Amino acid sequence: MNKIDHIGIAVKDLEKSNELFAKLLGTPHYKIEEVESEKVKTSFFKTGASKIELVEARNPESAIAMFIEKRGEGMHHIAFEVDDIEKEIERLKAEGFVPTGSGKPFCGADNKLVIFFHPKTTNGVLIELCQEIK
Amino acid sequence: MNKIDHIGIAVKDLEKSNELFAKLLGTPHYKIEEVESEKVKTSFFKTGASKIELVEARNPESAIAMFIEKRGEGMHHIAFEVDDIEKEIERLKAEGFVPTGSGKPFCGADNKLVIFFHPKTTNGVLIELCQEIK
Repeated sequence: MNKIDHIGIAVKDLEKSNELFAKLLGTPHYKIEEVESEKVKTSFFKTGASKIELVEARNPESAIAMFIEKRGEGMHHIAFEVDDIEKEIERLKAEGFVPTGSGKPFCGADNKLVIFFHPKTTNGVLIELCQEIK
Repeated sequence: MNKIDHIGIAVKDLEKSNELFAKLLGTPHYKIEEVESEKVKTSFFKTGASKIELVEARNPESAIAMFIEKRGEGMHHIAFEVDDIEKEIERLKAEGFVPTGSGKPFCGADNKLVIFFHPKTTNGVLIELCQEIK
């Protein structure tokens, strides 16, 4: 784990939240990206060497829509940058952490190969690993 | 806002969670600190230029105990490092954000002057500002 790549925040209305976080962080978002695989629309803000990612559901069946329905808007996941995602997945599985879905990395937002680990194995925190696709 | 200083995670049992996060992050915590003003015990892990702070309630009346009772363990706040906390408080108040408590910065963990902003004004995310005490 090299660093915190980003913190994912679930929001209901990306446009409104982009305005809110621009005021909060003192800087506007620098990109917007739709992620078909996750049925979400995202925006990114730079903060030091890390990013804030706002995530809006584009479909009531997306995990973000279900999260907001259950818990309301707020912090959704922490993503850590790794150099070798396959190696890190094996290390974490050997330590007892449980990946979500198929357990295989897939293409996420921001040109990254990503995987999530189940919050039940990590004190309620949804953990993402991400590796830049070169 | 210079960078993400740390992410605060509310945990029930600091000792057990220290073990868990050492496995997750691949590095042990580097310090433990009791914060009397907040009725909590904290531990810190380095990750790049930021930190993960685990926070355990030392008293059933602490905000952390109430958070866990309501929402379970998990992400509690995002802390941003600032150079001039008084100036940043004024800027955020002018933008409509609402500080918690007295609205004055106080001594938090990690030798920092800190203040929190109410999650109701920030899409459900509890925001901390922190400035190093020199």
